[in-house]
Amino acid sequence: MPVPLITLTTDFGLSDHYVGTMKGVILSICPRARIVDISHGIGAYEIAEGAFTLAQAYRYFPRRTVHVVVVDPGVGTARRPILVEAAKQYFVAPDNGVLSMICAREKHKARAITNERYFLKPVSQTFHGRDIFAPVGAHLAAGVAPARFGKLIADHLRQDFDKPVRTGRRAWTGAVLKVDRFGNMVTNFSAAEFPDLDLRAFEMAAGPRRISATARHYAAYGPGEPFLIVGSAGYYEISVSQGSAAKLLGCAAGAPLELTLF
Amino acid sequence: MPVPLITLTTDFGLSDHYVGTMKGVILSICPRARIVDISHGIGAYEIAEGAFTLAQAYRYFPRRTVHVVVVDPGVGTARRPILVEAAKQYFVAPDNGVLSMICAREKHKARAITNERYFLKPVSQTFHGRDIFAPVGAHLAAGVAPARFGKLIADHLRQDFDKPVRTGRRAWTGAVLKVDRFGNMVTNFSAAEFPDLDLRAFEMAAGPRRISATARHYAAYGPGEPFLIVGSAGYYEISVSQGSAAKLLGCAAGAPLELTLF
Amino acid sequence: MPVPLITLTTDFGLSDHYVGTMKGVILSICPRARIVDISHGIGAYEIAEGAFTLAQAYRYFPRRTVHVVVVDPGVGTARRPILVEAAKQYFVAPDNGVLSMICAREKHKARAITNERYFLKPVSQTFHGRDIFAPVGAHLAAGVAPARFGKLIADHLRQDFDKPVRTGRRAWTGAVLKVDRFGNMVTNFSAAEFPDLDLRAFEMAAGPRRISATARHYAAYGPGEPFLIVGSAGYYEISVSQGSAAKLLGCAAGAPLELTLF
Repeated sequence: MPVPLITLTTDFGLSDHYVGTMKGVILSICPRARIVDISHGIGAYEIAEGAFTLAQAYRYFPRRTVHVVVVDPGVGTARRPILVEAAKQYFVAPDNGVLSMICAREKHKARAITNERYFLKPVSQTFHGRDIFAPVGAHLAAGVAPARFGKLIADHLRQDFDKPVRTGRRAWTGAVLKVDRFGNMVTNFSAAEFPDLDLRAFEMAAGPRRISATARHYAAYGPGEPFLIVGSAGYYEISVSQGSAAKLLGCAAGAPLELTLF
Repeated sequence: MPVPLITLTTDFGLSDHYVGTMKGVILSICPRARIVDISHGIGAYEIAEGAFTLAQAYRYFPRRTVHVVVVDPGVGTARRPILVEAAKQYFVAPDNGVLSMICAREKHKARAITNERYFLKPVSQTFHGRDIFAPVGAHLAAGVAPARFGKLIADHLRQDFDKPVRTGRRAWTGAVLKVDRFGNMVTNFSAAEFPDLDLRAFEMAAGPRRISATARHYAAYGPGEPFLIVGSAGYYEISVSQGSAAKLLGCAAGAPLELTLF
Repeated sequence: MPVPLITLTTDFGLSDHYVGTMKGVILSICPRARIVDISHGIGAYEIAEGAFTLAQAYRYFPRRTVHVVVVDPGVGTARRPILVEAAKQYFVAPDNGVLSMICAREKHKARAITNERYFLKPVSQTFHGRDIFAPVGAHLAAGVAPARFGKLIADHLRQDFDKPVRTGRRAWTGAVLKVDRFGNMVTNFSAAEFPDLDLRAFEMAAGPRRISATARHYAAYGPGEPFLIVGSAGYYEISVSQGSAAKLLGCAAGAPLELTLF
């Protein structure tokens, strides 16, 4: 019998009781569940960052893993909770686009979660992580069939977080998806769509700088010299050796990037 | 056979080895234990914040859960370790009031933990989390009967963290219990004792502002307009839409609040 | 059958997907593994701090625990991954000195990890935590014999992080190993090598101050008066009551310390 596995991705941080409380709810319903934190450090209400973070991690988990995502600026309003089946895994989240990158990559089925039997009652106005997302995820991990939670839908919200916009014959505008702990700036330019940057002349404008070098490892250039490197996520990242590219360039998540090929 | 479940609530933070070491001790004694972090981000030595954080979470855990709490400014002095049985769960903590909110709400029994057989020896002067609280919690989770740890006591320290003081016929002085990650200020005014604030005229003075609006969800008012909302903990929280109320009002945990009913 | 236990010590922080992804890899290979975080808050690229943090924790874990350490400024260069067997436990890390304190204390065997069969392929240039260290740790926890991963070596990198240098008949220069969450400064002067500081006259220069007092618990002196205390790690720590010694003295990890005995 496989071990039920549940991951959590939220913007709750770790200093409040929120995450611990969700785990108590999960273990009360499904005591054998193994719970893995993907991140609770998503910026408050940052749906794109939540979408990106989960999209980097899910493919490394076993079949039947239940991913619970709570980045939910609309908690208490009419936005629906949804359940997506994709890549032989389950995704439970608010219907606000946070599963967009999963839905863009994987064949999937989506359901509106409406069966209140699987909620913790009374459902509060402010903490659906505890009252809806954690118990639904736990019941799913415990073996309740997806169809029990609600009907199939096709109009769940999808957003294009990872597609640079073409602005000229050889020019694109993109954005910083996330700044990681080391100050590496993950861009939304993927190596799959821009495969040959190390072989040709290019320029990427980021903050006050124009970058035209690529590298294969982080120690390739001296401190203070930003370069592009294909990160583990398959996107180009802007990095500097032994320092924070984000600080050097004054850029945060969402900052615009201009790529020109010559 | 149920899975033994242990939660941890400390002010140790997550960058040191302290929490990991406690988990090593626990798993050496009770290898099957499931360990859940409630929070390690309690402010250093902030007993009231630890008391509040645990009190929000414990009721969502299964029977027989062992809650280990280490917010312990008096480590190395004569303060006792105690074991409280309440709500069909166990609580292991220093006798400094950090279990006050549990003891105020639940019928309970308290014991002074004196049986050194369950300690890790030699007991250090500075790290009772490792040497006393973790091993006692692990032995308890492994099935050792509470009475084995020490005798019943009645004089364990209790403090009233969550009772506003009446200062006039229609006036109370309360306090901020905790600022959560989003900047919501959890007050010690409970919806149970002040049930009708949405139906009547009131004013709550917080920092430089006077708040007289209530809301049912966080998106109710425009940015910059603080309001009261009943949070998931059952207390009124001071919030602003898409921003930090604590920053707007310049208030931290412990800040005074004045409520007047009209 | 014992529960396979894996610990993680990294400088990845907790806001990115890196740690969650490593756990997905581990649980895909060894679903029964119990995973414990020692710390993900090691300073970026701070090998000495990683070495110290792990060295404080490992001895509290059961036999056969697999410790995976990823503090790896050289990722993508030629530095080897290594596997060390010591204290009846396993240690998987880059060969950059991060296991020095283990190797200095314990009889051990070291191997270069070369068998790519246990890697996740394709191996990226930037995320060996996911592609090498996590899968090797998981296969080891699942029962693969150490010899399967690669051949014994004797030239693995070792560094002396915890030996003050004698600079005179009664004078030593040491350093701050780590500043803990409370601002206690853990020094590299051990109580074993300097056993009698509480019995004799001494002076330790730290930042702008000279400390000549020792204490047995943190509440021993008034605020603002730094003192030495033997910490739970067996090293002298510089502390002040109810405050941060590191802030008071303006010192961070790596700061020099001068001890003079009279």
